[in-house]
Amino acid sequence: MRVAILAHEKFPDNAKTALGILRYADHDVVSVLDRTADGHRVSDFVPDVQDAPIVAGMDAIEPDDIDALVIGIAPIGGGFDESWRDDVRTALEYGCDVISGLHYFLEDDEEFAQLAAENDCDLWDVRNPPEDLTVAEGRADEVDAEVILTVGTDCSAGKMTTTMELARDARAAGHDAAVIPTGQTGIMIEGWGNPIDRVVSDFTAGAVEEMILEKGDEHDYLFVEGQGSIVHPAYSAVTLGILHGSMADNLVLCHNAGQEAIHGYESFALPSIPTYVDLYENVAAPVADSEIVAGALNTSALEDDEAARDAVDAYADTLDAPATDVIRFGTDAVLDELL
Amino acid sequence: MRVAILAHEKFPDNAKTALGILRYADHDVVSVLDRTADGHRVSDFVPDVQDAPIVAGMDAIEPDDIDALVIGIAPIGGGFDESWRDDVRTALEYGCDVISGLHYFLEDDEEFAQLAAENDCDLWDVRNPPEDLTVAEGRADEVDAEVILTVGTDCSAGKMTTTMELARDARAAGHDAAVIPTGQTGIMIEGWGNPIDRVVSDFTAGAVEEMILEKGDEHDYLFVEGQGSIVHPAYSAVTLGILHGSMADNLVLCHNAGQEAIHGYESFALPSIPTYVDLYENVAAPVADSEIVAGALNTSALEDDEAARDAVDAYADTLDAPATDVIRFGTDAVLDELL
Repeated sequence: MRVAILAHEKFPDNAKTALGILRYADHDVVSVLDRTADGHRVSDFVPDVQDAPIVAGMDAIEPDDIDALVIGIAPIGGGFDESWRDDVRTALEYGCDVISGLHYFLEDDEEFAQLAAENDCDLWDVRNPPEDLTVAEGRADEVDAEVILTVGTDCSAGKMTTTMELARDARAAGHDAAVIPTGQTGIMIEGWGNPIDRVVSDFTAGAVEEMILEKGDEHDYLFVEGQGSIVHPAYSAVTLGILHGSMADNLVLCHNAGQEAIHGYESFALPSIPTYVDLYENVAAPVADSEIVAGALNTSALEDDEAARDAVDAYADTLDAPATDVIRFGTDAVLDELL
Repeated sequence: MRVAILAHEKFPDNAKTALGILRYADHDVVSVLDRTADGHRVSDFVPDVQDAPIVAGMDAIEPDDIDALVIGIAPIGGGFDESWRDDVRTALEYGCDVISGLHYFLEDDEEFAQLAAENDCDLWDVRNPPEDLTVAEGRADEVDAEVILTVGTDCSAGKMTTTMELARDARAAGHDAAVIPTGQTGIMIEGWGNPIDRVVSDFTAGAVEEMILEKGDEHDYLFVEGQGSIVHPAYSAVTLGILHGSMADNLVLCHNAGQEAIHGYESFALPSIPTYVDLYENVAAPVADSEIVAGALNTSALEDDEAARDAVDAYADTLDAPATDVIRFGTDAVLDELL
């Protein structure tokens, strides 16, 4: 699929979805739309992802060169920025599908719905869960695949990135590995998935189990994208639903080096790493024997490679398990343990 | 409020909501509708609740005698039984509100919506969460009230009943206590509340926190109705969202005497009671210092009072905390600890 990614005024630093797609998706990215970086290229800002030209809007792209437009940014609140309307309109007039992770559903927008119908395009709001979800049956352990779930000490601790890096490198090493996406960026990268944080709370585990059962006999390894943290004051429900719903065999604990409190909830200190290990394993145990067998430390806050290496080694010591920074030091140490 | 409770063919054994309202609600129950028990009285079947005549349908009730009809049963699947349509229609023609906990929303039924509009009645679908819910801020501990949450070893372990009995008896003893309802029966009894199992999973904790913040400075004690179990293969997400969202001071662990496996998920054994204590307290700790300080054992499966007493004593020993069967032995032992 040939896609353009809308990232106006936010590329690359505040365009997590755009970067995820450039880094991990199979899509052929024909352009990034950012009116404040018109004329540059992705490689001017980010060296290690798929390169593409940056243009000011959809009208700089030829209709025959593109299949879909992806909204690659999310403003606080998840609303639709009216300054994007021309681009979405042009995409639909070109006959492109439009894929969005906004809280504002494009399919509820009268103009977009009408244009999509006229031009035979799909509007895919990835945050809108399917209608047919239901409660878990406690059956995810019946699949043939080994199920590996990323869990975290907080949100934004690298669970999506770790999941994608591990799955990609496992495939590159000749293994049959698939990703079970649970959040909007993962779903956009993989082209399918249930947005677990948007499902009815009773169906949290069931929406994960359904995906495991669908893919679990087709692959040898499933890498499940985790969400939140088991001790997050707001999002722990989602975390536990994924843990119990996936009935994971192995867990990889993701953590930001040096972080001491829940982001945005600074009065809540992170417990110690061994406490996290106990919490995740003990609360999983009555449902599945899920064990933390490796760690992923995000050392991007540390400039010095040696300091980063020391932090990873200390993290591995604390976990008593192999660890790495998947971006800085690759995935070998962790994949050796998992595969 | 003067209400009739619809419980066709299910009263009393399969009419949990009807019984909850008869036992705990402030409503004046003018009739129970059950066409298979027409001519009997509630007291013919259930001795210790509000008495009322049982009639075959709404047309046996005078329009001036009633304010609302409550759907007091829920078929498997939560659908609307068409044999109830005449009763709902008559209620609306009488000018009554209709309150329902079905998955099938009455407000989406064209005939009912039109009749409600014509007769100036409310259709209240208690499973339909309010639109304005959002994520938790981790602030429930700011309220003046002491927050007491019932938690369980499984679903249907007596959390709603324990919550209602404790709150009622606390009030009877002169304390200012309120209930925070989180499920459909609790919401119908109290006349307000968020159906936590139906909210968007990201808002699970937030929907509880919102209720605590709304009521927490008006009362000395809040009794929060818990849901599910921290180790339930399907519903643990809801349980943890309520635990973290409520930031409860004290927990009461509810358990069915003799139960050994998760109901409906028989391959999942219940862990030991001390394991439950550790799990609930340890996973709460990074968010709030919630402590299991008492137990509620449902001994209804034990015919013999002495065996029931022994079971409660053994449960208290295992918990190292006071315990009771709130229905069989009253609430004193537990309230002495809580108040």
